[in-house]
Amino acid sequence: MALLSPFLVLVLVPVAAVIGIVFALVQWLIVSRVSVRASAANGTPVSNNGYGEYLLEEEGTDDANLVLKCAEIQSAISEGAQSFLATEYQYLAIFMAIFSVFIFVFLGSVNGFSTKSVPCKDGTGLCAPPVANALFSTIAFILGALTSTLSGYLGMTIATYANARTTLEARKGVGRAFIVAFRSGSVMGFLLAANGLLVLFLAIVLFKIYYGDDWVGLYESIAGYGLGGSSVALFGRVGGGIYTKAADVGADLVGKVERNIPEDDPRNPAVIADNVGDNVGDIAGMGADLFGSFAESSCAALVISSISSFGADRDFVAMSFPLLISSAGIVVCLLTTLFATDFFEIKNVKEIEPSLKRQLLISTILMTIAIAVVVYIALPKTFTINVVGHQPKVVRNWGLFFCVGSGLWAGLIIGYTTEYFTSNAYQPVQDVADSCRTGAATNIIFGLALGYKSVIIPVIAIAIAIFLSFSLAAMYGIAVAALGMLSTLATGLAIDAYGPISDNAGGIAEMAGMPHKIRERTDALDAAGNTTAAIGKGFAIGSAALVSLALFGAFVSRAGIAVVDVIQPKEFVGLIVGAMLPYWFSAMTMKSVGKAALAMVEEVRRQFNTIPGLMEGTVKPDYKKCVQISTDASLREMIPPGALVMLTPLIVGTLFGPSTLAGLLAGALVSGVQIAISASNTGGAWDNAKKYIEAGASDHARSLGPKGSDAHKAAVIGDTVGDPLKDTSGPSLNILIKLMAVESLVFAPFFATHGGILFKYFNI
Amino acid sequence: MALLSPFLVLVLVPVAAVIGIVFALVQWLIVSRVSVRASAANGTPVSNNGYGEYLLEEEGTDDANLVLKCAEIQSAISEGAQSFLATEYQYLAIFMAIFSVFIFVFLGSVNGFSTKSVPCKDGTGLCAPPVANALFSTIAFILGALTSTLSGYLGMTIATYANARTTLEARKGVGRAFIVAFRSGSVMGFLLAANGLLVLFLAIVLFKIYYGDDWVGLYESIAGYGLGGSSVALFGRVGGGIYTKAADVGADLVGKVERNIPEDDPRNPAVIADNVGDNVGDIAGMGADLFGSFAESSCAALVISSISSFGADRDFVAMSFPLLISSAGIVVCLLTTLFATDFFEIKNVKEIEPSLKRQLLISTILMTIAIAVVVYIALPKTFTINVVGHQPKVVRNWGLFFCVGSGLWAGLIIGYTTEYFTSNAYQPVQDVADSCRTGAATNIIFGLALGYKSVIIPVIAIAIAIFLSFSLAAMYGIAVAALGMLSTLATGLAIDAYGPISDNAGGIAEMAGMPHKIRERTDALDAAGNTTAAIGKGFAIGSAALVSLALFGAFVSRAGIAVVDVIQPKEFVGLIVGAMLPYWFSAMTMKSVGKAALAMVEEVRRQFNTIPGLMEGTVKPDYKKCVQISTDASLREMIPPGALVMLTPLIVGTLFGPSTLAGLLAGALVSGVQIAISASNTGGAWDNAKKYIEAGASDHARSLGPKGSDAHKAAVIGDTVGDPLKDTSGPSLNILIKLMAVESLVFAPFFATHGGILFKYFNI
Repeated sequence: MALLSPFLVLVLVPVAAVIGIVFALVQWLIVSRVSVRASAANGTPVSNNGYGEYLLEEEGTDDANLVLKCAEIQSAISEGAQSFLATEYQYLAIFMAIFSVFIFVFLGSVNGFSTKSVPCKDGTGLCAPPVANALFSTIAFILGALTSTLSGYLGMTIATYANARTTLEARKGVGRAFIVAFRSGSVMGFLLAANGLLVLFLAIVLFKIYYGDDWVGLYESIAGYGLGGSSVALFGRVGGGIYTKAADVGADLVGKVERNIPEDDPRNPAVIADNVGDNVGDIAGMGADLFGSFAESSCAALVISSISSFGADRDFVAMSFPLLISSAGIVVCLLTTLFATDFFEIKNVKEIEPSLKRQLLISTILMTIAIAVVVYIALPKTFTINVVGHQPKVVRNWGLFFCVGSGLWAGLIIGYTTEYFTSNAYQPVQDVADSCRTGAATNIIFGLALGYKSVIIPVIAIAIAIFLSFSLAAMYGIAVAALGMLSTLATGLAIDAYGPISDNAGGIAEMAGMPHKIRERTDALDAAGNTTAAIGKGFAIGSAALVSLALFGAFVSRAGIAVVDVIQPKEFVGLIVGAMLPYWFSAMTMKSVGKAALAMVEEVRRQFNTIPGLMEGTVKPDYKKCVQISTDASLREMIPPGALVMLTPLIVGTLFGPSTLAGLLAGALVSGVQIAISASNTGGAWDNAKKYIEAGASDHARSLGPKGSDAHKAAVIGDTVGDPLKDTSGPSLNILIKLMAVESLVFAPFFATHGGILFKYFNI
Repeated sequence: MALLSPFLVLVLVPVAAVIGIVFALVQWLIVSRVSVRASAANGTPVSNNGYGEYLLEEEGTDDANLVLKCAEIQSAISEGAQSFLATEYQYLAIFMAIFSVFIFVFLGSVNGFSTKSVPCKDGTGLCAPPVANALFSTIAFILGALTSTLSGYLGMTIATYANARTTLEARKGVGRAFIVAFRSGSVMGFLLAANGLLVLFLAIVLFKIYYGDDWVGLYESIAGYGLGGSSVALFGRVGGGIYTKAADVGADLVGKVERNIPEDDPRNPAVIADNVGDNVGDIAGMGADLFGSFAESSCAALVISSISSFGADRDFVAMSFPLLISSAGIVVCLLTTLFATDFFEIKNVKEIEPSLKRQLLISTILMTIAIAVVVYIALPKTFTINVVGHQPKVVRNWGLFFCVGSGLWAGLIIGYTTEYFTSNAYQPVQDVADSCRTGAATNIIFGLALGYKSVIIPVIAIAIAIFLSFSLAAMYGIAVAALGMLSTLATGLAIDAYGPISDNAGGIAEMAGMPHKIRERTDALDAAGNTTAAIGKGFAIGSAALVSLALFGAFVSRAGIAVVDVIQPKEFVGLIVGAMLPYWFSAMTMKSVGKAALAMVEEVRRQFNTIPGLMEGTVKPDYKKCVQISTDASLREMIPPGALVMLTPLIVGTLFGPSTLAGLLAGALVSGVQIAISASNTGGAWDNAKKYIEAGASDHARSLGPKGSDAHKAAVIGDTVGDPLKDTSGPSLNILIKLMAVESLVFAPFFATHGGILFKYFNI
């Protein structure tokens, strides 16, 4: 028997979640002590900035007007973000309502909406009727969606709360600015990880009141939580991705190209939308994406273990293993954060990236120990995992240590590889920058080649993690490997959210007319942020791969498929069409960015042409109108790609049946991972190649610059191409592969009963 | 019983092949009647040009000096091509020698090189020992390689023989020039299709003398023919692809960008290498690629049927079904060619593309009838196809009609879709051209999105063909579907080879200083050629997909694998790593082009800097040196990607065993198809978007132009990025997926016996 009692589990999990939430709130409190109003209001110089310290470094930065301007810009960005969210929530509400009906009807129809109990799958008495599962799946779906929405909302709020504070702190030094940005990122990280865990835990406890000992039904219903989380991620990633790049590209095309004004110039009507976009895409989008992964991998693990010996033995402690891993993760990440905020201090620009990298390493090492502890106290020595159509797999508890650990370390390898390929401290990006010498074409070719090459190590790392955990504990191993990768979620999100906050801080510095030196500091923060954003995307896609494989495994179990044999026509056709879907989806999202950007271009042109005094800076542009255009365009443009993702599993499952759908999921998974990694790294590399030339920190970099040189112009073209790749189509693919898998899992009983009507009709 | 007797088969197949060869020679003869010397030698105007017609249209084009110049340039290109081939053959010979030893040793070792006969697989007496199979496989390998080499050599010879003739005929009108280029293309098409068939047929007949009634051994050895053909294709496609783009990019970067001289300017030292490259890549490379597909699909069909009822019943007529389909194809293509050369006449530029498209349609319709005839006369009413680990599949003869037909029509759909996405007569390319208005970045984004989108219909067409033929006749169905797509090979190759010939003709016109009007005509031929090149690439990748699936099927049969279950760790890991390989390979080939182009850039710069009078046009550059550089660089740079392709199956099969290898092949196939199609269409679209702006044939096009406008500059950047995508990395992927599959098939007995040593060691 395990050392942990069920009662202790019922205490420890919520306690860990609450600790995470409290920690996040404390961080928020510390950030809030950076004042953006206070002394600015009375017009006296802000010499004492809440810390009792004096602003030593810059002349003219303690001007009350500057602080006032920062506050103004911050509130404009914040308003814009709120306005986007408000509109998004309207769409989301409609979608949720419709899809809730879908879930209830599809799942309820499995047994003709009969409210009579049915024989349990394991043959031990009567279990809840399908219509009850339909109802609880729908409730879980709504819960997942609400939790994700709340986390995204809080993340956006803190991010837009922290950006001007980061700018202001940059006056005191790069280290101070870094800590504000990082703390704010960790607010997001901890709130999301802790809320996700808490709601999931409560849902299980509450659902159990109805389900009692019908654990299979209980945990299958809980799978709706993952679907809910992922559906919101669709809006966040795809809609948010289109938003951010429409605003960015639109602002650049008119501002930089046509009007020849610098980036982040306050005269550009789209500049606020651009800054809002950073938050919408990388904060809300990334948060929803990773929340989805967390929810889905937990659900996949729970579904698989509920039909295995944990479920059959009614071993609540062992069943809660995924929740315990996540609980341990919160505590580990809390300790890790202290290394960045309290134990070490950033003194100059060069220390930023190593410090963020150290976060990854520290959290991974600590988590490895934590996993060993959880395995030791929560799991029986041996147990079995059922595999449809095969002998049950006997697993030893230390086997699960390797499963979770392999996912965790694969995450670190992916993170480090991504850093190597996207940071301008290393050869690959410098080579790309160098290729700008011969023009934009060679820059594009080298960048694409870099992205392709950057796929090799992450995929091999994922493959090894899959092989290990698959061999040790079948599909349960994969699910907990995904959880392992996500166990350091709070830290991962913190360093990811740090990026857009720094980016915004730079924008605010520019718009407020801060001195050049401040902008240099925020640029350094931002360059590190580009790399961490790429690392975050690497994590997101790595975990998406593991998660969708786990969901795939749970789906085939639930649909009763024993083999997915790709030398059969139905499966192979699914496989090759599935491998095509990421291309179709990418084509759609890239086109969507183009269309939305065009709408923005027209509005920006209109304002420049019709508002007198705008170019001279005497009249303020109508920022709100641009925010509105970006919001509407992005949400409208996300409908076709969103429909592709949501409808494909339903159509394929209904018309062609679960075997073809299984092939399709496998194809989309193995093909989507590659494009997603290569797109996000290519884009990150182009962005940093441009920054490398602009910063001119080495002889080589200076030989390519300065800003405005031919090489720099070529680099700008690469950067623009990379924008939709790295921020829209690439990361959106995570959603494609996960959402199709979790949707298949939730609808599996329907497909197993009624699916494949086309083949049935033709009797194939 | 079938209507055809074995004797008739022994007569009909070689007769069809000989008809094909004779037809090719007649076409060659007709082309040769266009004189490039004759009256030029004595310095009098060439008013009568071999046809008894006078040159009506142009002033100053009947100058003997012009003709002399054309002849000179032609012979320089021809020499360059020969020099490339001579060097390539040296490398090839070394590779062949080493790989022959590999084949013999690996296959011979299966039974410890014992020369004792072994019990037959079907249990009917004694069969040839593995060492004999090793020997005959090696011989078949060498035969396949030699046939492919010979076909490539002849194709290059006729292409370089025809280019100046096309230029000269352009003086008489676009129709005359078109016919010369098309006839020359068909020489290549027919020689290749007929030689391939003839040598395969003779090999079977001769091997049968040793094998007697051991048909399984016989046809398994014959599979070496496919491997030989594909190995040469590796050199042709990868080496040739690097060559052509190194020369092209190198010539452009120094000539157009640094020295500001036009494309195809005779002062550019790399201009001959550039023109040689068109032949090396698109003629020899494409020819070897499609020859490989033809050889491999025939071999896959033969291997599968030899272990099915055709083989068991010793039904030679039915066994020869693949050869009969190819024979019928030669006759059908012969008739089709007459429609282009004799039944219709091209009167103006607009008729070129429809005429080429009509070729596809006519050959497809005629071939459909021919298939029905062959099915009716050669096949028994029903027969069975064995499927390892499953019940044998009972197939009706009309089932095979649908298999072959589905492949054939899928080919047409792919061809037409490709045309739609790459021809500047349609919306997609015009949209890409329009996006140049906002600069190179939007051009790149739209082009990439176009490529991704262009994947949808071809993949669905392939999927339907696969599903139909798979369901009707298991893996045999796939193999004959591939053969169906390739049955119109001679026509496909003719319209494909037409492209580079026209391209060269344009180059020669420019270099010889022909009047503008001539250049306009050759440009029109060339624009159509870009589209047909894309169509050809579409065919090549479509057939590669079917062929590798067929080879994959033959491999699993031969390795005795009953299921490739992707919800098992070994297979799934193979699948995801396999899906990564095309990215790795593309990264390598794109980098290779970059490196080889750099070597060229240095040489061209050196010549411009050190040869006095070169820029003034008084001294000729050292063309040969550039040809040599391109040759050496391309062959050196193809070693890493070549090694990746050749070694991966050997390493994976040996270390991880046949199951993982099967997963790997499936992954590489479904992922590679998508990248190959999107890369080649993206590149084709960019090229034609540029040509669309340059030609300025509509108001829209004129609003973007003229040459040198900002939009045109943006289009040129897209074109340059597209070059390595469409001519190197994209088409090379065909080789990746086919060669890995055929190599696995040939080495299957070794992997089945000794493979998977790593897993065996760890006892997994």
